Order: sequence, then C-alpha cells, then structure tokens
Amino acid sequence: MTQFDIAVLTIGDELLSGELPDTNTATIGRLLGAHGYALREALTVGDVEDDIQGALQQLVSRRQVIIVTGGLGPTADDLTARAAALAFGQRLAVNDEALRQIRDFFRQSGQAMHPRNEKQALLPQRARVLANRRGTAPGFWLQVEGREVFFLPGVPAEMTAMLSESVLPLLEKHHGGAPPRRERILTVFGLSEPKAEELLLTYPLPAGVTVAWGVDFPMVLVKLRADGEEADSLLDRAEVVVRRALGEHIVALGDQTLAQVVAGLLTDHGLTLALAESCTGGLLSAMLTDQPGASIFLERTAVTYANSAKEQWLGVPADLLVSEGAVSEGCALAMAKGMRQAAGTDLALSITGIAGPSGGSPAKPVGTVYLALSAAGQERVKGYRFTGDRQQVRRTAACMALEWLRRYLMTRNLEGI
Amino acid sequence: MTQFDIAVLTIGDELLSGELPDTNTATIGRLLGAHGYALREALTVGDVEDDIQGALQQLVSRRQVIIVTGGLGPTADDLTARAAALAFGQRLAVNDEALRQIRDFFRQSGQAMHPRNEKQALLPQRARVLANRRGTAPGFWLQVEGREVFFLPGVPAEMTAMLSESVLPLLEKHHGGAPPRRERILTVFGLSEPKAEELLLTYPLPAGVTVAWGVDFPMVLVKLRADGEEADSLLDRAEVVVRRALGEHIVALGDQTLAQVVAGLLTDHGLTLALAESCTGGLLSAMLTDQPGASIFLERTAVTYANSAKEQWLGVPADLLVSEGAVSEGCALAMAKGMRQAAGTDLALSITGIAGPSGGSPAKPVGTVYLALSAAGQERVKGYRFTGDRQQVRRTAACMALEWLRRYLMTRNLEGI
Repeated sequence: MTQFDIAVLTIGDELLSGELPDTNTATIGRLLGAHGYALREALTVGDVEDDIQGALQQLVSRRQVIIVTGGLGPTADDLTARAAALAFGQRLAVNDEALRQIRDFFRQSGQAMHPRNEKQALLPQRARVLANRRGTAPGFWLQVEGREVFFLPGVPAEMTAMLSESVLPLLEKHHGGAPPRRERILTVFGLSEPKAEELLLTYPLPAGVTVAWGVDFPMVLVKLRADGEEADSLLDRAEVVVRRALGEHIVALGDQTLAQVVAGLLTDHGLTLALAESCTGGLLSAMLTDQPGASIFLERTAVTYANSAKEQWLGVPADLLVSEGAVSEGCALAMAKGMRQAAGTDLALSITGIAGPSGGSPAKPVGTVYLALSAAGQERVKGYRFTGDRQQVRRTAACMALEWLRRYLMTRNLEGI
Repeated sequence: MTQFDIAVLTIGDELLSGELPDTNTATIGRLLGAHGYALREALTVGDVEDDIQGALQQLVSRRQVIIVTGGLGPTADDLTARAAALAFGQRLAVNDEALRQIRDFFRQSGQAMHPRNEKQALLPQRARVLANRRGTAPGFWLQVEGREVFFLPGVPAEMTAMLSESVLPLLEKHHGGAPPRRERILTVFGLSEPKAEELLLTYPLPAGVTVAWGVDFPMVLVKLRADGEEADSLLDRAEVVVRRALGEHIVALGDQTLAQVVAGLLTDHGLTLALAESCTGGLLSAMLTDQPGASIFLERTAVTYANSAKEQWLGVPADLLVSEGAVSEGCALAMAKGMRQAAGTDLALSITGIAGPSGGSPAKPVGTVYLALSAAGQERVKGYRFTGDRQQVRRTAACMALEWLRRYLMTRNLEGI
C-alpha cells in the first residue's frame, strides 16, 4: 500500500448535535479502501469558522491528503471556502470556472438561478475547481505546503460521485496506484444474519478472502473482500462457496436490488405483469416502477383496500369475502386470477394481509399475509406470518412477492415457491 | 449554556475502513444536547497506539471534557487503556475495583471468565472506574491538567447506558446543570433552500433563536433552536415569524411528514379518497398507506400504466388518449373523475406524467406531470414541469399530490391550489 496519510474532515452542526449521523466518513473510507488507500483519521467540526480554520491547519500539519466535506452550500452557515482561505492565507475571489459550472447546472436543469448561488463561486484564490454534475456546489482543491486538500459538498450522492470521478483519479496520478481491494456483495433473503453466518461457517472460504455482514431489512448482505492482483479470482472462488452454503437464498449480486433483478427478468423474458395489492398499499408497485422502463412489463396495479374494489375490478365473489374474509387463501387466489383476466397479462400477483398495528385477531394475527400468483395454466397461493412492525410487515411482504416472481421467472414453474 | 467544550474521540479501525458507520458520535451529541451541553468536535482514529495517544494529548490541550469510546475489549487490538497511560504519563496497574466488576459480571451472567478478560482491569494508575452493567469492559475516567477524560466501551448499548448513568451525572456535578436546548422543525415544500432563506431574512427572529437548514428531498427543513428557561416561548414566537415569512409553504411541524398530515386530515374530516397513478407507479399510495389506519380513508388505488387500464377502470375515452395523449390535462381530469365515479369516494386524485429517463419529447419533456383532483361539484387540473432524475420527478409529483390534498382539506376549496 502506498505510504501516505489521508484524513477526512466533515463539517456541519447537524453531525455534532446528532441530528444527522455522519455517513460520509464511512463512504470515503470504503471507497479509499477499494482503491488500496487507507484513511488514517477523521475529524468533525460544526459550522464555526474558527473551528473549521483550526481543523484545516492542524490536519495539514500532520497528513498528506485531506478530504473535506460539507459547508459549500449557498446559505449563511456554509463557511468552508472562507475558512479555507483564512487557514491558508489566501484571498477569496470569484472563480470564473466555478461560476460557469453553477450557471450551466441551472441552465441544464431548467431552473432559475438564485443570486445567492453566486456565493458558491467565491473560492480561495488558488483553488482549482472539481466538477459537480449533480448539484450546485462546485468542489475545489488546493495544494498547501506540499499537501493536497480536497473540498467536496456534504450531500452524500454529490460527494460520492465527485470522490470517484475527480479525487481518486488525482490521487492515483499524484501518488501512484495501489493494489486494489475488491468487494463482492451477495444479497440474501429469507435467512437471519446469525443463521446465514452459521450456515456459511461450515464452508471454508479461500485464504485471503474476508467476509463482513450487513443488513438492509429484510435483506442480509454478505460482503466478500480480497486484496491484490488475485482479488477477482479469489472472489470468484469465494462466491461459489457462498452460493453452495446459502443456495437459493441469494437473490441478487453486487449493487443490484431484488426489484431490479425481477424487472430485468420480466423485460428479458418479454412477459407482462399486473399486481393486486391490499396490505402493501402500492409498495410493491412503487418498488417495481422505480426501475426505468417498468412500463414495458407492468400493465397495471390495483390497490384494493375496500371490498367493493376487490369485487368490481378483480371479480372477487362477495360471498367469498363474507365466508373466508379478505385476508384468506381464497381471496388472494381470486384476486390474482381476477386481475390476470382483467388486465390480460401473462402474470398476475396478489397480496392480502394484516400489516397492523390494529386489525389482527387470534386466528389471523398482525403479520398474516397471503400471496397468490396466476400464470397461464398454473396458479399458486400461500400464507405467511411475518414479524415486525407495520413497515416491516409491508416490506417483507413486498420482497416475498418479488422473490416469488424471481423464482417463477428462473424456472417457469410455480412448484418451487 | 454552561461554557465548556466537549470533544468525542471514537476509536476503531472498522470506523475508518467504512465497515461500520460511527453511530456513537451522533448518540453522544444527541444526549449531550438533551441535557443542555453541546459537542464541539469529534475525532476518529484507528486501533493504533500512537494515534490514540496523539489524539488524547491534542484533545486535552484544547477541550475541557473528552469522551472516548472503543478499544476497551479483551483482545490484542484493544489499546485504549495503554495509550491513555502513555499519553498522560501514568503507569498501567491492575485496578482492583475493575477486576471485581469483571468477575461479578461473569458470575452474574453464569458464564466462565476467560483469563484474557483480566487484561480489561489493567488501567492507568489514577483511573477511577465507571460501572458497566451490560458488558465486561469497565469504563474509567481521569482528571488530567484540570480536564476530564471519560473512557467508555464502543458497544453502542453499553456506551449509551454508561453515558446516561455515570458521565452525565458527573458533568452535572462538576459543571452544574445546563439549561436545556429546544428545537422546533418546520417542513417547507415548494421553495428551494436559498429561496426560503431569502424570504425568512426579511423577518427578524426573536433574539436567542438560531435557525439551521436541512433538506429531505423535495422538502426543506427549517430548524429553530433556543436555549434556556424561555426556550419554548421563544420558539413559539419564532414559529409565528417563520409562518408569516413562508406562509402556505409550511406543510408540517415537528416529526410529522406531509403524508401523516394528510392522513390525519382525511381521518379527522371523515372523507374517503381514491387514487389514480400513472408515472408515480403506486408511490403516492405507498406513502399514504404507510400510515396506520389508512384503510379508513383510502378506498382504492389504480396504477394505470397501460391505456387499456385507463379506459377499462377509469372510463378515459379512447379518442381522448389518441387526440391529447395519456400525459395531458384532459387525461388527468378524466382519470380523476372516472376514478371518483368508480370508487364512489368523496375525493379522487390522479397523476399522469413522464418520469424518465426515456419517453420525453420536445413538447412534453421528462418531468412533465399533470395532477387532477375531483371533489363533489369541484374539479381542478394543472400541469407541472418537475426537474431531476426519475426518482426525484416521482417523489416531487407524489409530494405535490399530497400538498393538493392538504390544501383542499384545509380550505375545502380547490381554487387556491
């Protein structure tokens, strides 16, 4: 690993008051690690000019590279550029390139530029601008006493993009590349973290591969990591091991979400889909339509809270709603079949259940959810009892519905669900 | 506010590698704030003895109180006690009280004590022990050059309990209680952050009230803060000023979301609602049904991506879809009216638009969205051109629809929208 020290300085009152947890430090640490660099220390100060100035001077005295985030916005509590000018004995001046970038951003997004945004072009006189394609705040960097100080906005998406697109290439140019750290993430559904860890323990991973665990409810993330030239082939071998241990519970790879996997499969197979949601209230539909091009496969969704909607749109018989109730196998199946007929799609999927906090009964407690899928010549219905609060039950039900679609699309068979 | 400066030092390689985000700093900041103290700076270093020692010496040179978390465990990379002894020129010695606590913890939890845990009783010679009832690592504190340094374990639950049970009472005893800090948040929709700040600038806030800004896209958050006995009445007066300045753009107060406000109004007024969504794909319905009790007011939602669904369920005339297109004033209005008729609800709201990234044209670019609302004897339709990517257009459109509902429910009049 290349021998130079990197520090992060995050700026913002909200980080010290606990109003907003600092996620930028972890993101920067991860991205640096992925490129073979390591973060040596991280400092946070509030929106206080003296504190920002003091922190910059200290960090420059002991680290070679400093990455600063936050305080580049247009409002009065955004003080970073001024504090940097003071810290390094430079004047503040309008930076023409920064001004042009801000104007271009507003022109391209069709918004009117507020005069206050011009303040964002007021930078230390020797600042060199870093492009920000996602927001109004230009980044900049300075060379000071042989050290490099990079200033990025605090908005995580803008910060991350600028770090990848501008800062890391500059580090590589100035300090040489470092052997990369590679990471491969497998998304697991239907196993708790301890259970998944226990299953994986009996399958030894190749030497040099480490595993870390994460949770993105209801998903568990298995993060495999390896360093050096052999990293990719080590991770290939590790992935085979994890797939052997966790098998069908692995639902996505890398940055993909389960909804993206299902959207891709539906598009690739040229199949159309309609959804009938009750307790999830449109959440499944919103997850699928978040993907660009969703109109290719999704014909329509019905959120049928009221029984009248189930009867009128999905043809669920009124006497079934009385005899079995709206949360029942029979109703779920009638919803899916009725929806497929109404929409004329290849597939129709239904969800009906009790998300809570009220509405449960001893026979059908909160968390009771039925799913049904109707395809040409095939149908399937199944009941679940999910745990957690209203949000967790809704999310788990929507993810289980996605998992049904994934399994059907992989095998064209409803038996395995 | 009592005048002394508090710093946090969090220790752990995993915090710098990005493997584990640092949540302790935010927790400490929040708890200090609730007791009227403020955090001045936060520093993170890895499990490196030199770095811990250096950080302690620096922080003691400029802050009165330092709260340290992490590195008190039994393993080889837990170096905090040794680094503290080096930093402050003290010997390491077995602390009898600490040893007794560790033994008691194992006895009470019925576990065997590993010899390695004895290492956790090896503390700087003048350390005073802080009780840890939830884990094996005793905390401790030192007085150094008139400064106080508290050492707590990194495990969040143990750290939080010890901060509340031991550190805050000691701070209060040594420095006196501090008047509490109060905060009031107003959520603003339909103004950019600079625009909102500019509007507010012309209305002076009461002395003693500070304002901070935040963004929860597409919402802007105005955070009013005041300290001391008068805090609540100062904030009452400040809220009046902000309402005068930003008026109808204030859509929610405190922790409430706009969706919660709308759900509350619909429930209070006893009105029923049906939704017809196209480009938002169920997102509006999912936001509203995330609120417990949504089935009281929401009858049904149709996500009508395909024209056939618009015709079949909402009665949108086929020739209108040909002549004006699915993204048009006429279609939006026909969707809302048709939905209200189909569902028999008091209100029906429709959204149709182009979320992108594809599907735009020169006449109707990406971001073009029409909303319509149908109520008894009243109807309203309007076109927008929202900016941003697919997710941002969808979110802005759904929030604008909620805002239409809020305004109608406040006034029972569609004119003002």
